[in-house]
Amino acid sequence: MTAPPDQSPGQSSATLASEPGTGHRTFLGVQVPLRLDCGIELSEFPVAYQTYGELNTDKSNAVLVCHALSGDQFVSATHPLTGKPGWWDMVVGPGKLVDSERYFIICANILGGCMGTIGPKEVNPGTGQPWGLDFPVITVADMVRAQAMLVDHLEIDTLFCVIGGSLGGMQVLEWAASYPERVRTAVPIATAPYHSAQNIAFDEVGRQAIMADPDWRGGNYLIQGTNPHRGLAIARMVAHITYLSEPALHNKFGRRLQDRDAVTFGFDADFQVESYLRHQGSTFVDRFDANSYLYITRAMDYFDLAERYDGVLAEAFLGSETRFCVISFTSDWLYPTSESRRIVHALNAAAANVSFAEIESDMGHDAFLLEEPKFWRVLSGFLDGAREHFGLGTGNGT
Amino acid sequence: MTAPPDQSPGQSSATLASEPGTGHRTFLGVQVPLRLDCGIELSEFPVAYQTYGELNTDKSNAVLVCHALSGDQFVSATHPLTGKPGWWDMVVGPGKLVDSERYFIICANILGGCMGTIGPKEVNPGTGQPWGLDFPVITVADMVRAQAMLVDHLEIDTLFCVIGGSLGGMQVLEWAASYPERVRTAVPIATAPYHSAQNIAFDEVGRQAIMADPDWRGGNYLIQGTNPHRGLAIARMVAHITYLSEPALHNKFGRRLQDRDAVTFGFDADFQVESYLRHQGSTFVDRFDANSYLYITRAMDYFDLAERYDGVLAEAFLGSETRFCVISFTSDWLYPTSESRRIVHALNAAAANVSFAEIESDMGHDAFLLEEPKFWRVLSGFLDGAREHFGLGTGNGT
Repeated sequence: MTAPPDQSPGQSSATLASEPGTGHRTFLGVQVPLRLDCGIELSEFPVAYQTYGELNTDKSNAVLVCHALSGDQFVSATHPLTGKPGWWDMVVGPGKLVDSERYFIICANILGGCMGTIGPKEVNPGTGQPWGLDFPVITVADMVRAQAMLVDHLEIDTLFCVIGGSLGGMQVLEWAASYPERVRTAVPIATAPYHSAQNIAFDEVGRQAIMADPDWRGGNYLIQGTNPHRGLAIARMVAHITYLSEPALHNKFGRRLQDRDAVTFGFDADFQVESYLRHQGSTFVDRFDANSYLYITRAMDYFDLAERYDGVLAEAFLGSETRFCVISFTSDWLYPTSESRRIVHALNAAAANVSFAEIESDMGHDAFLLEEPKFWRVLSGFLDGAREHFGLGTGNGT
Repeated sequence: MTAPPDQSPGQSSATLASEPGTGHRTFLGVQVPLRLDCGIELSEFPVAYQTYGELNTDKSNAVLVCHALSGDQFVSATHPLTGKPGWWDMVVGPGKLVDSERYFIICANILGGCMGTIGPKEVNPGTGQPWGLDFPVITVADMVRAQAMLVDHLEIDTLFCVIGGSLGGMQVLEWAASYPERVRTAVPIATAPYHSAQNIAFDEVGRQAIMADPDWRGGNYLIQGTNPHRGLAIARMVAHITYLSEPALHNKFGRRLQDRDAVTFGFDADFQVESYLRHQGSTFVDRFDANSYLYITRAMDYFDLAERYDGVLAEAFLGSETRFCVISFTSDWLYPTSESRRIVHALNAAAANVSFAEIESDMGHDAFLLEEPKFWRVLSGFLDGAREHFGLGTGNGT
C-alpha cells in the first residue's frame, strides 16, 4: 500500500532515499484503519518516522529500530529538537555497527508517543482538540501493527532485522510473534516477555505523580493551557533511578557533594546525585508529553506476550524461522537476565534459532544505550553472521 | 537528671512501671539544652516514648528499641491511633522474643518525628506556630543524643541492648559509637554505615514529590490549613516498593488483576499491585506528617558514621566492649548484605565482639518487620547468650 500521489498535509509519502546518515522526518497518512486491542478503530493517523541509508534493489537490507519509553524516531545523527545526538547514535549511523551505508534503517515514533505519531497530544479529528484521555489505551501489539503498516507503505515485505531495547525489545518480541515471516533476525535487548509486578509498581508511581499534579487537569492540560511539569519530572526521576544500578550510581556520584564543601542542613541538592536527578526531571519535561507517559507506561504494563497463547510463551514462536539474538546485562535490575532467560527458554522450546548473551556491565538497564563494547561485539558478530547467512554480502545489499 | 515533681503539660515525668505488655505514652520535658549537629540548640523539647515491662532493681534489663522512618514509639501492643498492632508487636511484648516480662523496653519517637517528640509539626515556642521548615535539620546523631537524654532521665546508666532495623539500625550504630560504655549489646538490622547514592536518590524523589504538591505551601501547610497528602502518598508509594523485593511482589501479586477479569484499557488500578500501592499511600498520609518525612529522610541521607573518623569506620568502634549482632536479609536491596558486611569488617578491624547473620528471605527490606522465624532464631540465640554472659539470669533481672 502506498500513499496517494496528491497528498494533503500530514499525509506526505515516505522518501526512500536520503543523504546517508542524515535522517529526515516524514509522515505517513495511513489509509487503512487500525483496529486496536481495546476494540476502537483509528483511521487516517500520522506515523512520524526517520529513515537512514538507502533501501537496496531487492529490498533485503531494511532494519527496523524500535525505541523505548522516552525515545523517539531520531535514533541517529543530531536530534532536531534537543540538538544532541540521537538516542542510539553510538550504534546507528554511517560506518557504525548498524551501518546506514549498508542498511536501510527505519525508526518510527511509537503509537501513543509525542513526536508526531498519533497519541494523546495530537488533535482528535472528532473534536478538533487534543485527544487527552479520550485517546484509546493502546498496547505494544498496537504499536507493532502501526509499524507494520508503515513497512507496508514503504513496500518492504521482509525486514532484515528488528532490534530494540526495553520497551523496544517488547516490540521486537511482538514483531517476531505476529509477523514471523517478515522478520529475518530479531534482537530483543534488556527486555522481558511480560512486565513484572515491580515494574508495574514503578510505572504506577510515575502515573500517580503525573495525575496528582493539579496542572494535569484530568488530562486536559493542553486545552486548559497548563503543564503538569512537576508531576512528570517526579515520574522521570523515579524511572531514571531504575535505569541505573547501585554500582553505577556509586561510581558516578557516591556521596559526593554538589559544588559545596559541607552539607547545608537544608533541602537543597547537597548531593551530586540529587542535582543529577533534578536535572533529569527538568530536562525531560521540555521534550515529553505527560499523557504520552501515561499511555506508554500502560502499554508496557499490559504487555504479556504469552497471554494470548494460553500462558505458553513458546507457542508465540512455534515454527518461526527468525534468527534471534537475546541480550541482557548483569546489573539490569529492571529487566534482569532471568527475564531474558524466559525468552530464551521459550525460543528453545519452540526449536527456534537463538543466540543469548548476558553482558557483564555495571551500568544497569541503560547499558544498551551507553558505551558498552562487549555488547557491541556480540551485536556486531550476530549481524555479520546473519548477513552472511541471508546472502546480503558486504556491500549495500546484494 | 529527672523531671521536676510539679510538671506543666508536656513535661510529665516517666512512669517506670506499667502493666506488663501495655505501653503507655509519656513525655519528657528535657531541661538540658540539646546542641544539634547543625549548631542550633533546642531547649525544653518533648520526647514522646513508651515503656513496656519493669526496670529491675539493678537497672540492668533495659532495652532501647529504635524505630525506622515510618515507625513510632508504639512498638508493641495496640497502636492507639491506628488500632492495629504496634510495628514490632510480633517481636516485642510479654512472652515474646524481646520479652517485656523480662526486659524494661523503651521506645521513643525520634527527633523530627510526628508522634509527640519535637519535630516540624510541633509548636515553635518562639512563634507559637508549628515549626514547619524553620525546624532545624537534624541528624541520626541528634536523634541518639535526645534518646540518651531520655535514658538519663530514666536514671539508667547502661542499656542491656539497643536494637533496631533500617534507620533504627543507624541509631544502633550511632549509640554504639557515641556511648560504647552505655551499650552492652547492639543489634543493627538491615542497615548500613552510610546512606548509598541510590538510597539518597529514592529519598530525593520522595521529597520532591512532597515539595511539588501545591498544598505543601513551602512547608507551611499546617498554618495555612492545607495538606500535601498527594505528594506524601507518592513518596510513600515509591519508598514502599524499595521495602519489598521483586520475588515478594511477584509472589504476592504477580500480574493478577484487582476485582476484574480483564484489563479495562484505562488508568484505574487494574492490577492488584497498583491497588495495594495506592492503599499504602493513602493510609500513610492519615498518620504521618509530610515535613517530618522530609526531615527524617534528610537525616538518613546525611548519615555516614565513618565521616567523623576520617573515613575509617573501624575507628568508630575502637576499644568497644559492646557485643554486636549484625543481621541482613538476602533479598534486601535497599540495605543489601554488602553494607552489613562493611559494618562487620569494621567491627572485626576494631577487634570488637561481633556475630553476623545473613538471613535467607525473599521478603526484601521489610523482612525485619515480618514473620521471619530464621531471623527470630538468630536474634533469640544472641539475646540468650548475652543474658547469660552479663548474668541477667532467667527471671526479671538478677
